[in-house]
Amino acid sequence: MKIAHFSVEGMEFYGSVEGDRVRAIQGSIFGEFTVTGLSFPLTGVTLLPPTRPTHFWGIGENYPYHVRFRVEQFGEEVATRAKRFTPWHKGASAVVASGQPVIMPVNAEIFEYEGELCIVIGKPARNVSIEDAPDYILGYTVSNDISSEGSWHDDFSHWRRKGCDTFGPVGPWIDTAVEPHNLDIITRVNGVVEDQGNTRDMVHNCYEIVSNISQYVTLHPGDLITTGAPGLTRPMKPGEVVEIEIPEIGILRNEIVLDTR
Amino acid sequence: MKIAHFSVEGMEFYGSVEGDRVRAIQGSIFGEFTVTGLSFPLTGVTLLPPTRPTHFWGIGENYPYHVRFRVEQFGEEVATRAKRFTPWHKGASAVVASGQPVIMPVNAEIFEYEGELCIVIGKPARNVSIEDAPDYILGYTVSNDISSEGSWHDDFSHWRRKGCDTFGPVGPWIDTAVEPHNLDIITRVNGVVEDQGNTRDMVHNCYEIVSNISQYVTLHPGDLITTGAPGLTRPMKPGEVVEIEIPEIGILRNEIVLDTR
Repeated sequence: MKIAHFSVEGMEFYGSVEGDRVRAIQGSIFGEFTVTGLSFPLTGVTLLPPTRPTHFWGIGENYPYHVRFRVEQFGEEVATRAKRFTPWHKGASAVVASGQPVIMPVNAEIFEYEGELCIVIGKPARNVSIEDAPDYILGYTVSNDISSEGSWHDDFSHWRRKGCDTFGPVGPWIDTAVEPHNLDIITRVNGVVEDQGNTRDMVHNCYEIVSNISQYVTLHPGDLITTGAPGLTRPMKPGEVVEIEIPEIGILRNEIVLDTR
Repeated sequence: MKIAHFSVEGMEFYGSVEGDRVRAIQGSIFGEFTVTGLSFPLTGVTLLPPTRPTHFWGIGENYPYHVRFRVEQFGEEVATRAKRFTPWHKGASAVVASGQPVIMPVNAEIFEYEGELCIVIGKPARNVSIEDAPDYILGYTVSNDISSEGSWHDDFSHWRRKGCDTFGPVGPWIDTAVEPHNLDIITRVNGVVEDQGNTRDMVHNCYEIVSNISQYVTLHPGDLITTGAPGLTRPMKPGEVVEIEIPEIGILRNEIVLDTR
Protein backbone atom coordinates (compact mmCIF):
# COMPACT_ATOMS: atom_id res chain seq x y z
CA MET A 1 0.00 0.00 0.00
CA LYS A 2 1.10 3.56 -0.73
CA ILE A 3 0.13 5.82 2.18
CA ALA A 4 0.01 9.57 1.50
CA HIS A 5 -0.37 12.35 4.03
CA PHE A 6 -2.32 15.22 2.49
CA SER A 7 -4.67 18.11 3.05
CA VAL A 8 -7.75 19.10 1.12
CA GLU A 9 -9.67 22.30 1.85
CA GLY A 10 -7.62 22.67 5.03
CA MET A 11 -8.52 19.20 6.37
CA GLU A 12 -5.65 16.73 6.93
CA PHE A 13 -5.89 13.04 6.10
CA TYR A 14 -3.80 9.98 5.55
CA GLY A 15 -4.93 8.07 2.50
CA SER A 16 -4.27 5.09 0.24
CA VAL A 17 -2.97 6.08 -3.19
CA GLU A 18 -4.79 4.06 -5.87
CA GLY A 19 -4.06 5.12 -9.45
CA ASP A 20 -4.78 8.81 -9.78
CA ARG A 21 -6.90 9.01 -6.63
CA VAL A 22 -6.29 8.80 -2.87
CA ARG A 23 -8.82 7.19 -0.48
CA ALA A 24 -8.99 8.59 3.06
CA ILE A 25 -7.81 6.43 5.96
CA GLN A 26 -9.71 6.25 9.28
CA GLY A 27 -7.50 5.48 12.29
CA SER A 28 -3.75 5.53 12.94
CA ILE A 29 -1.31 4.44 10.24
CA PHE A 30 0.86 3.14 13.11
CA GLY A 31 -1.95 0.99 14.53
CA GLU A 32 -5.44 -0.03 13.45
CA PHE A 33 -6.95 1.67 10.46
CA THR A 34 -9.41 1.19 7.63
CA VAL A 35 -9.43 2.63 4.12
CA THR A 36 -12.75 4.43 3.65
CA GLY A 37 -14.75 5.19 0.55
CA LEU A 38 -14.00 8.92 0.72
CA SER A 39 -11.63 9.66 -2.13
CA PHE A 40 -10.06 12.64 -3.88
CA PRO A 41 -8.16 13.08 -7.14
CA LEU A 42 -4.41 13.29 -6.41
CA THR A 43 -4.26 16.46 -8.49
CA GLY A 44 -6.73 18.08 -6.07
CA VAL A 45 -4.85 17.52 -2.80
CA THR A 46 -1.74 19.07 -1.24
CA LEU A 47 0.85 16.52 -0.15
CA LEU A 48 2.19 16.89 3.41
CA PRO A 49 5.37 15.37 4.84
CA PRO A 50 4.68 11.65 5.34
CA THR A 51 5.20 11.94 9.12
CA ARG A 52 6.09 14.45 11.82
CA PRO A 53 9.11 12.59 13.15
CA THR A 54 10.43 12.56 16.70
CA HIS A 55 13.84 12.05 15.10
CA PHE A 56 14.97 12.64 11.54
CA TRP A 57 18.20 10.66 11.17
CA GLY A 58 20.80 10.86 8.45
CA ILE A 59 23.33 8.19 7.45
CA GLY A 60 26.43 9.35 5.61
CA GLU A 61 28.93 7.66 3.34
CA ASN A 62 26.78 4.58 2.87
CA TYR A 63 27.67 3.74 -0.76
CA PRO A 64 31.25 2.99 -1.91
CA TYR A 65 30.89 5.09 -5.07
CA HIS A 66 29.69 8.11 -3.09
CA VAL A 67 32.56 7.69 -0.62
CA ARG A 68 35.11 7.76 -3.45
CA PHE A 69 33.45 10.90 -4.82
CA ARG A 70 33.63 12.66 -1.44
CA VAL A 71 37.23 11.52 -0.85
CA GLU A 72 38.25 13.24 -4.11
CA GLN A 73 36.37 16.36 -2.98
CA PHE A 74 37.25 16.57 0.72
CA GLY A 75 40.21 14.23 1.24
CA GLU A 76 41.06 10.95 2.92
CA GLU A 77 39.35 11.84 6.22
CA VAL A 78 36.07 10.94 4.52
CA ALA A 79 37.31 7.39 3.95
CA THR A 80 38.23 7.07 7.62
CA ARG A 81 34.82 8.42 8.63
CA ALA A 82 33.04 6.06 6.25
CA LYS A 83 34.43 3.05 8.10
CA ARG A 84 32.36 3.92 11.18
CA PHE A 85 28.56 3.71 11.38
CA THR A 86 27.75 7.26 12.45
CA PRO A 87 24.20 8.50 12.03
CA TRP A 88 23.43 12.11 12.85
CA HIS A 89 20.30 14.12 13.61
CA LYS A 90 19.08 16.10 10.63
CA GLY A 91 16.35 17.74 12.76
CA ALA A 92 12.59 17.73 12.33
CA SER A 93 12.49 21.37 11.11
CA ALA A 94 14.21 20.25 7.92
CA VAL A 95 11.23 18.16 6.75
CA VAL A 96 9.16 19.38 3.80
CA ALA A 97 6.80 17.53 1.47
CA SER A 98 7.06 16.88 -2.24
CA GLY A 99 5.97 20.05 -3.99
CA GLN A 100 7.19 22.43 -1.28
CA PRO A 101 10.12 24.76 -2.00
CA VAL A 102 13.62 24.10 -0.69
CA ILE A 103 15.00 27.40 0.60
CA MET A 104 18.64 28.11 -0.22
CA PRO A 105 20.27 30.41 2.37
CA VAL A 106 21.75 33.53 0.73
CA ASN A 107 25.12 32.74 2.30
CA ALA A 108 25.29 29.11 1.10
CA GLU A 109 28.37 28.66 -1.09
CA ILE A 110 27.63 25.07 -2.13
CA PHE A 111 24.11 23.68 -2.17
CA GLU A 112 23.67 20.08 -3.32
CA TYR A 113 21.00 17.39 -3.74
CA GLU A 114 21.43 13.86 -2.42
CA GLY A 115 18.70 11.49 -3.61
CA GLU A 116 18.14 8.69 -1.09
CA LEU A 117 15.87 5.92 0.15
CA CYS A 118 14.21 6.88 3.45
CA ILE A 119 13.09 4.41 6.15
CA VAL A 120 9.82 5.15 8.02
CA ILE A 121 9.67 3.57 11.49
CA GLY A 122 6.37 1.91 12.43
CA LYS A 123 6.68 1.11 16.13
CA PRO A 124 8.97 1.84 19.08
CA ALA A 125 12.27 0.07 18.43
CA ARG A 126 14.85 -0.52 21.15
CA ASN A 127 17.58 -3.16 21.08
CA VAL A 128 16.19 -4.74 17.92
CA SER A 129 18.12 -7.49 16.10
CA ILE A 130 18.90 -7.26 12.38
CA GLU A 131 16.54 -10.21 11.82
CA ASP A 132 13.65 -8.52 13.64
CA ALA A 133 14.23 -5.04 12.15
CA PRO A 134 11.72 -5.41 9.27
CA ASP A 135 8.91 -5.73 11.87
CA TYR A 136 9.67 -2.21 13.11
CA ILE A 137 9.63 -0.56 9.69
CA LEU A 138 6.29 0.76 8.42
CA GLY A 139 7.62 1.36 4.93
CA TYR A 140 9.89 3.41 2.72
CA THR A 141 9.77 6.76 0.99
CA VAL A 142 12.11 8.97 -1.04
CA SER A 143 14.28 11.73 0.42
CA ASN A 144 16.57 14.49 -0.72
CA ASP A 145 19.29 14.98 1.89
CA ILE A 146 20.09 18.59 0.96
CA SER A 147 23.70 19.32 1.88
CA SER A 148 25.38 22.71 1.94
CA GLU A 149 28.67 24.38 2.63
CA GLY A 150 29.22 27.99 3.55
CA SER A 151 30.62 29.92 6.49
CA TRP A 152 29.55 26.80 8.42
CA HIS A 153 32.09 24.54 6.70
CA ASP A 154 34.00 24.09 9.97
CA ASP A 155 31.00 23.40 12.23
CA PHE A 156 31.63 20.10 14.00
CA SER A 157 27.93 19.16 13.82
CA HIS A 158 25.70 19.04 10.73
CA TRP A 159 23.17 21.48 12.23
CA ARG A 160 23.50 23.89 9.29
CA ARG A 161 25.33 21.77 6.71
CA LYS A 162 22.41 19.31 6.60
CA GLY A 163 19.78 20.71 8.96
CA CYS A 164 18.53 24.15 7.92
CA ASP A 165 14.78 24.59 7.48
CA THR A 166 13.56 22.78 4.31
CA PHE A 167 16.82 20.82 3.85
CA GLY A 168 14.91 17.51 4.14
CA PRO A 169 12.31 16.93 1.39
CA VAL A 170 10.58 13.58 2.02
CA GLY A 171 7.83 11.91 0.00
CA PRO A 172 5.72 11.74 -2.04
CA TRP A 173 4.28 8.96 0.19
CA ILE A 174 5.15 5.85 2.18
CA ASP A 175 5.26 2.50 0.38
CA THR A 176 4.58 -0.29 2.88
CA ALA A 177 5.10 -3.23 0.51
CA VAL A 178 8.31 -2.45 -1.35
CA GLU A 179 11.46 -4.53 -0.77
CA PRO A 180 14.19 -2.01 0.07
CA HIS A 181 17.42 -3.54 -1.17
CA ASN A 182 17.16 -3.57 -4.94
CA LEU A 183 15.73 -0.17 -5.82
CA ASP A 184 16.99 2.27 -8.44
CA ILE A 185 17.40 5.86 -7.25
CA ILE A 186 17.32 8.35 -10.12
CA THR A 187 18.05 12.05 -9.64
CA ARG A 188 16.99 14.60 -12.27
CA VAL A 189 17.60 18.34 -12.28
CA ASN A 190 15.31 20.28 -14.62
CA GLY A 191 14.38 16.96 -16.22
CA VAL A 192 17.96 15.83 -16.96
CA VAL A 193 19.26 12.68 -15.25
CA GLU A 194 22.22 13.70 -13.08
CA ASP A 195 22.75 10.57 -11.01
CA GLN A 196 21.58 7.00 -10.80
CA GLY A 197 22.29 4.27 -8.26
CA ASN A 198 20.78 1.19 -6.64
CA THR A 199 20.14 0.40 -2.98
CA ARG A 200 21.78 -3.01 -3.37
CA ASP A 201 25.11 -1.16 -3.04
CA MET A 202 24.45 0.13 0.50
CA VAL A 203 27.31 -0.49 2.97
CA HIS A 204 24.87 -0.76 5.92
CA ASN A 205 21.49 -1.99 4.72
CA CYS A 206 18.18 -0.77 6.14
CA TYR A 207 17.83 -3.59 8.66
CA GLU A 208 21.38 -3.07 9.97
CA ILE A 209 20.73 0.68 10.25
CA VAL A 210 17.57 0.21 12.35
CA SER A 211 19.21 -2.44 14.51
CA ASN A 212 22.39 -0.40 15.04
CA ILE A 213 20.64 2.82 16.09
CA SER A 214 18.22 0.94 18.35
CA GLN A 215 21.08 -0.47 20.44
CA TYR A 216 21.55 3.03 21.91
CA VAL A 217 18.55 5.20 21.05
CA THR A 218 14.86 4.28 20.89
CA LEU A 219 13.30 4.82 17.47
CA HIS A 220 9.71 6.10 17.50
CA PRO A 221 6.75 5.60 15.15
CA GLY A 222 7.15 8.11 12.34
CA ASP A 223 10.92 8.49 12.72
CA LEU A 224 12.62 8.99 9.39
CA ILE A 225 16.07 7.68 8.45
CA THR A 226 17.59 8.86 5.19
CA THR A 227 20.04 6.16 4.18
CA GLY A 228 22.75 7.89 2.14
CA ALA A 229 23.32 9.02 -1.43
CA PRO A 230 24.51 6.39 -3.92
CA GLY A 231 26.61 8.46 -6.25
CA LEU A 232 27.50 11.93 -7.42
CA THR A 233 26.02 15.31 -6.72
CA ARG A 234 26.62 18.85 -7.95
CA PRO A 235 25.72 22.34 -6.77
CA MET A 236 22.20 23.57 -7.55
CA LYS A 237 20.95 27.05 -8.35
CA PRO A 238 17.71 28.84 -7.43
CA GLY A 239 14.96 28.06 -9.91
CA GLU A 240 16.14 24.51 -10.59
CA VAL A 241 13.69 21.67 -9.95
CA VAL A 242 15.05 18.48 -8.43
CA GLU A 243 13.26 15.17 -8.86
CA ILE A 244 14.32 12.06 -6.97
CA GLU A 245 12.61 8.99 -8.36
CA ILE A 246 12.49 5.50 -6.97
CA PRO A 247 10.25 3.92 -9.61
CA GLU A 248 8.60 1.40 -7.26
CA ILE A 249 7.73 4.19 -4.77
CA GLY A 250 7.24 7.49 -6.62
CA ILE A 251 8.79 10.86 -7.45
CA LEU A 252 9.86 13.50 -4.91
CA ARG A 253 9.86 16.91 -6.64
CA ASN A 254 11.05 20.22 -5.15
CA GLU A 255 12.06 23.59 -6.54
CA ILE A 256 15.10 25.45 -5.21
CA VAL A 257 14.20 28.98 -4.08
CA LEU A 258 16.63 31.62 -2.83
CA ASP A 259 15.91 32.88 0.68
CA THR A 260 14.59 36.43 0.33
CA ARG A 261 14.03 37.29 3.99
CA MET B 1 5.35 30.84 37.85
CA LYS B 2 6.84 27.35 38.15
CA ILE B 3 5.10 25.02 35.69
CA ALA B 4 5.44 21.29 36.35
CA HIS B 5 4.41 18.46 34.04
CA PHE B 6 3.23 15.50 36.11
CA SER B 7 1.00 12.46 36.31
CA VAL B 8 -1.24 11.34 39.13
CA GLU B 9 -3.11 8.02 39.04
CA GLY B 10 -2.18 7.73 35.37
CA MET B 11 -3.66 11.12 34.42
CA GLU B 12 -1.27 13.74 32.97
CA PHE B 13 -1.43 17.43 33.87
CA TYR B 14 0.54 20.60 33.72
CA GLY B 15 0.35 22.50 37.01
CA SER B 16 1.52 25.53 38.94
CA VAL B 17 3.93 24.64 41.77
CA GLU B 18 2.97 26.58 44.91
CA GLY B 19 4.86 25.59 48.05
CA ASP B 20 4.50 21.85 48.57
CA ARG B 21 1.47 21.53 46.26
CA VAL B 22 0.82 21.72 42.53
CA ARG B 23 -2.41 23.16 41.07
CA ALA B 24 -3.63 21.73 37.76
CA ILE B 25 -3.59 23.93 34.67
CA GLN B 26 -6.45 23.98 32.13
CA GLY B 27 -5.37 24.85 28.58
CA SER B 28 -2.03 24.98 26.78
CA ILE B 29 1.09 26.25 28.54
CA PHE B 30 2.13 27.64 25.13
CA GLY B 31 -1.10 29.61 24.72
CA GLU B 32 -4.11 30.45 26.86
CA PHE B 33 -4.48 28.67 30.18
CA THR B 34 -5.94 29.05 33.66
CA VAL B 35 -4.74 27.64 36.98
CA THR B 36 -7.62 25.66 38.47
CA GLY B 37 -8.47 24.82 42.05
CA LEU B 38 -7.62 21.13 41.60
CA SER B 39 -4.39 20.57 43.53
CA PHE B 40 -2.18 17.69 44.64
CA PRO B 41 0.69 17.39 47.11
CA LEU B 42 4.02 17.39 45.21
CA THR B 43 5.01 14.23 47.10
CA GLY B 44 1.98 12.46 45.60
CA VAL B 45 2.67 13.10 41.92
CA THR B 46 5.20 11.73 39.42
CA LEU B 47 7.14 14.41 37.58
CA LEU B 48 7.29 14.07 33.78
CA PRO B 49 9.76 15.76 31.40
CA PRO B 50 8.73 19.44 31.19
CA THR B 51 8.03 19.14 27.45
CA ARG B 52 8.14 16.65 24.58
CA PRO B 53 10.45 18.68 22.35
CA THR B 54 10.55 18.74 18.58
CA HIS B 55 14.27 19.47 18.99
CA PHE B 56 16.51 18.97 22.00
CA TRP B 57 19.57 21.14 21.32
CA GLY B 58 22.91 21.12 23.06
CA ILE B 59 25.48 23.92 23.22
CA GLY B 60 29.06 22.96 23.96
CA GLU B 61 32.07 24.82 25.31
CA ASN B 62 30.00 27.79 26.46
CA TYR B 63 31.96 28.71 29.62
CA PRO B 64 35.69 29.68 29.56
CA TYR B 65 36.49 27.60 32.67
CA HIS B 66 34.89 24.49 31.14
CA VAL B 67 36.77 25.06 27.87
CA ARG B 68 40.11 25.16 29.75
CA PHE B 69 39.16 21.94 31.55
CA ARG B 70 38.34 20.15 28.27
CA VAL B 71 41.48 21.49 26.55
CA GLU B 72 43.59 19.88 29.30
CA GLN B 73 41.64 16.65 28.84
CA PHE B 74 41.29 16.43 25.04
CA GLY B 75 43.78 18.93 23.60
CA GLU B 76 43.86 22.23 21.77
CA GLU B 77 41.24 21.22 19.19
CA VAL B 78 38.61 21.95 21.85
CA ALA B 79 39.77 25.57 22.03
CA THR B 80 39.42 25.90 18.26
CA ARG B 81 35.97 24.32 18.41
CA ALA B 82 34.92 26.61 21.25
CA LYS B 83 35.46 29.68 19.06
CA ARG B 84 32.56 28.64 16.83
CA PHE B 85 28.91 28.66 17.85
CA THR B 86 27.99 25.06 17.06
CA PRO B 87 24.83 23.62 18.59
CA TRP B 88 24.07 19.96 18.03
CA HIS B 89 20.97 17.78 18.30
CA LYS B 90 20.88 15.75 21.50
CA GLY B 91 17.72 13.95 20.36
CA ALA B 92 14.30 13.73 21.98
CA SER B 93 14.80 10.12 23.13
CA ALA B 94 17.39 11.36 25.60
CA VAL B 95 14.85 13.30 27.70
CA VAL B 96 13.92 11.99 31.15
CA ALA B 97 12.31 13.73 34.13
CA SER B 98 13.71 14.43 37.56
CA GLY B 99 13.44 11.21 39.54
CA GLN B 100 13.86 8.88 36.57
CA PRO B 101 16.99 6.74 36.28
CA VAL B 102 19.84 7.57 33.92
CA ILE B 103 20.91 4.35 32.22
CA MET B 104 24.66 3.85 31.80
CA PRO B 105 25.51 1.64 28.80
CA VAL B 106 27.59 -1.38 29.85
CA ASN B 107 30.24 -0.42 27.30
CA ALA B 108 30.57 3.22 28.40
CA GLU B 109 34.16 3.86 29.50
CA ILE B 110 33.60 7.40 30.75
CA PHE B 111 30.19 8.61 31.94
CA GLU B 112 29.94 12.18 33.20
CA TYR B 113 27.41 14.72 34.48
CA GLU B 114 27.19 18.27 33.12
CA GLY B 115 24.84 20.48 35.16
CA GLU B 116 23.35 23.22 32.97
CA LEU B 117 20.65 25.85 32.56
CA CYS B 118 18.07 24.76 29.95
CA ILE B 119 16.01 27.13 27.78
CA VAL B 120 12.35 26.20 27.06
CA ILE B 121 11.00 27.73 23.82
CA GLY B 122 7.49 29.20 24.01
CA LYS B 123 6.55 29.96 20.42
CA PRO B 124 7.80 29.34 16.88
CA ALA B 125 11.03 31.30 16.45
CA ARG B 126 12.55 32.00 13.04
CA ASN B 127 14.99 34.79 12.25
CA VAL B 128 14.62 36.33 15.71
CA SER B 129 16.88 39.20 16.83
CA ILE B 130 18.82 39.07 20.09
CA GLU B 131 16.61 41.87 21.42
CA ASP B 132 13.39 40.00 20.62
CA ALA B 133 14.62 36.57 21.79
CA PRO B 134 13.15 36.83 25.33
CA ASP B 135 9.65 36.97 23.80
CA TYR B 136 10.15 33.49 22.33
CA ILE B 137 11.32 31.87 25.57
CA LEU B 138 8.65 30.37 27.83
CA GLY B 139 11.05 29.89 30.73
CA TYR B 140 14.02 27.98 32.05
CA THR B 141 14.65 24.65 33.70
CA VAL B 142 17.65 22.60 34.86
CA SER B 143 19.40 19.96 32.74
CA ASN B 144 22.09 17.33 33.07
CA ASP B 145 23.84 16.97 29.72
CA ILE B 146 25.10 13.43 30.32
CA SER B 147 28.26 12.88 28.27
CA SER B 148 30.01 9.62 27.64
CA GLU B 149 32.99 8.13 25.91
CA GLY B 150 33.44 4.52 24.84
CA SER B 151 33.94 2.65 21.59
CA TRP B 152 32.12 5.69 20.12
CA HIS B 153 34.95 8.09 20.95
CA ASP B 154 35.67 8.62 17.24
CA ASP B 155 32.07 9.13 16.08
CA PHE B 156 31.90 12.45 14.24
CA SER B 157 28.41 13.18 15.60
CA HIS B 158 27.29 13.19 19.24
CA TRP B 159 24.55 10.59 18.63
CA ARG B 160 25.94 8.24 21.29
CA ARG B 161 28.38 10.50 23.15
CA LYS B 162 25.52 12.78 24.21
CA GLY B 163 22.35 11.22 22.83
CA CYS B 164 21.72 7.71 24.18
CA ASP B 165 18.32 7.07 25.79
CA THR B 166 18.08 8.83 29.22
CA PHE B 167 21.20 11.00 28.61
CA GLY B 168 19.11 14.18 28.99
CA PRO B 169 17.52 14.63 32.43
CA VAL B 170 15.49 17.87 32.42
CA GLY B 171 13.46 19.39 35.24
CA PRO B 172 12.10 19.47 37.85
CA TRP B 173 9.88 22.14 36.22
CA ILE B 174 9.85 25.29 34.07
CA ASP B 175 10.35 28.66 35.76
CA THR B 176 8.73 31.37 33.65
CA ALA B 177 9.84 34.37 35.75
CA VAL B 178 13.52 33.78 36.49
CA GLU B 179 16.18 36.03 34.92
CA PRO B 180 18.63 33.67 33.21
CA HIS B 181 22.00 35.41 33.38
CA ASN B 182 22.97 35.45 37.03
CA LEU B 183 22.09 31.97 38.30
CA ASP B 184 24.26 29.65 40.35
CA ILE B 185 24.47 26.07 39.06
CA ILE B 186 25.47 23.62 41.77
CA THR B 187 26.21 19.95 41.07
CA ARG B 188 26.21 17.37 43.86
CA VAL B 189 26.99 13.67 43.65
CA ASN B 190 25.70 11.63 46.59
CA GLY B 191 25.15 14.90 48.45
CA VAL B 192 28.71 16.24 48.01
CA VAL B 193 29.21 19.44 45.99
CA GLU B 194 31.36 18.58 42.97
CA ASP B 195 31.02 21.70 40.86
CA GLN B 196 29.64 25.21 41.06
CA GLY B 197 29.33 27.95 38.44
CA ASN B 198 27.21 30.92 37.43
CA THR B 199 25.38 31.63 34.19
CA ARG B 200 26.88 35.13 34.06
CA ASP B 201 30.02 33.47 32.64
CA MET B 202 28.33 32.11 29.49
CA VAL B 203 30.18 32.88 26.23
CA HIS B 204 26.93 32.97 24.23
CA ASN B 205 24.04 34.02 26.46
CA CYS B 206 20.52 32.60 26.19
CA TYR B 207 19.22 35.36 23.92
CA GLU B 208 22.18 35.04 21.55
CA ILE B 209 21.68 31.26 21.44
CA VAL B 210 17.99 31.53 20.49
CA SER B 211 18.70 34.24 17.94
CA ASN B 212 21.65 32.38 16.40
CA ILE B 213 19.85 29.05 15.94
CA SER B 214 16.72 30.77 14.60
CA GLN B 215 18.68 32.32 11.71
CA TYR B 216 18.86 28.84 10.15
CA VAL B 217 16.41 26.52 11.90
CA THR B 218 12.92 27.23 13.25
CA LEU B 219 12.58 26.63 16.98
CA HIS B 220 9.25 25.15 18.11
CA PRO B 221 7.18 25.51 21.28
CA GLY B 222 8.60 23.04 23.80
CA ASP B 223 12.05 22.88 22.22
CA LEU B 224 14.78 22.50 24.83
CA ILE B 225 18.27 24.02 24.60
CA THR B 226 20.81 22.96 27.20
CA THR B 227 23.31 25.81 27.39
CA GLY B 228 26.61 24.24 28.44
CA ALA B 229 28.37 23.20 31.64
CA PRO B 230 30.16 25.91 33.61
CA GLY B 231 33.02 23.99 35.12
CA LEU B 232 34.43 20.57 35.91
CA THR B 233 32.98 17.11 35.71
CA ARG B 234 34.17 13.63 36.65
CA PRO B 235 33.13 10.08 35.77
CA MET B 236 30.15 8.67 37.64
CA LYS B 237 29.40 5.13 38.78
CA PRO B 238 26.15 3.15 38.93
CA GLY B 239 24.31 3.79 42.19
CA GLU B 240 25.44 7.41 42.46
CA VAL B 241 22.75 10.09 42.69
CA VAL B 242 23.36 13.36 40.83
CA GLU B 243 21.61 16.55 41.84
CA ILE B 244 21.83 19.70 39.73
CA GLU B 245 20.48 22.68 41.65
CA ILE B 246 19.72 26.15 40.37
CA PRO B 247 18.37 27.62 43.61
CA GLU B 248 15.91 30.02 41.93
CA ILE B 249 14.44 27.16 39.85
CA GLY B 250 14.77 23.86 41.71
CA ILE B 251 16.69 20.59 41.97
CA LEU B 252 17.03 17.99 39.21
CA ARG B 253 17.79 14.60 40.81
CA ASN B 254 18.61 11.35 39.00
CA GLU B 255 20.22 8.07 39.96
CA ILE B 256 22.77 6.36 37.70
CA VAL B 257 21.76 2.78 36.90
CA LEU B 258 23.81 0.26 34.90
CA ASP B 259 22.05 -1.07 31.81
CA THR B 260 21.15 -4.69 32.52
CA ARG B 261 19.47 -5.63 29.25
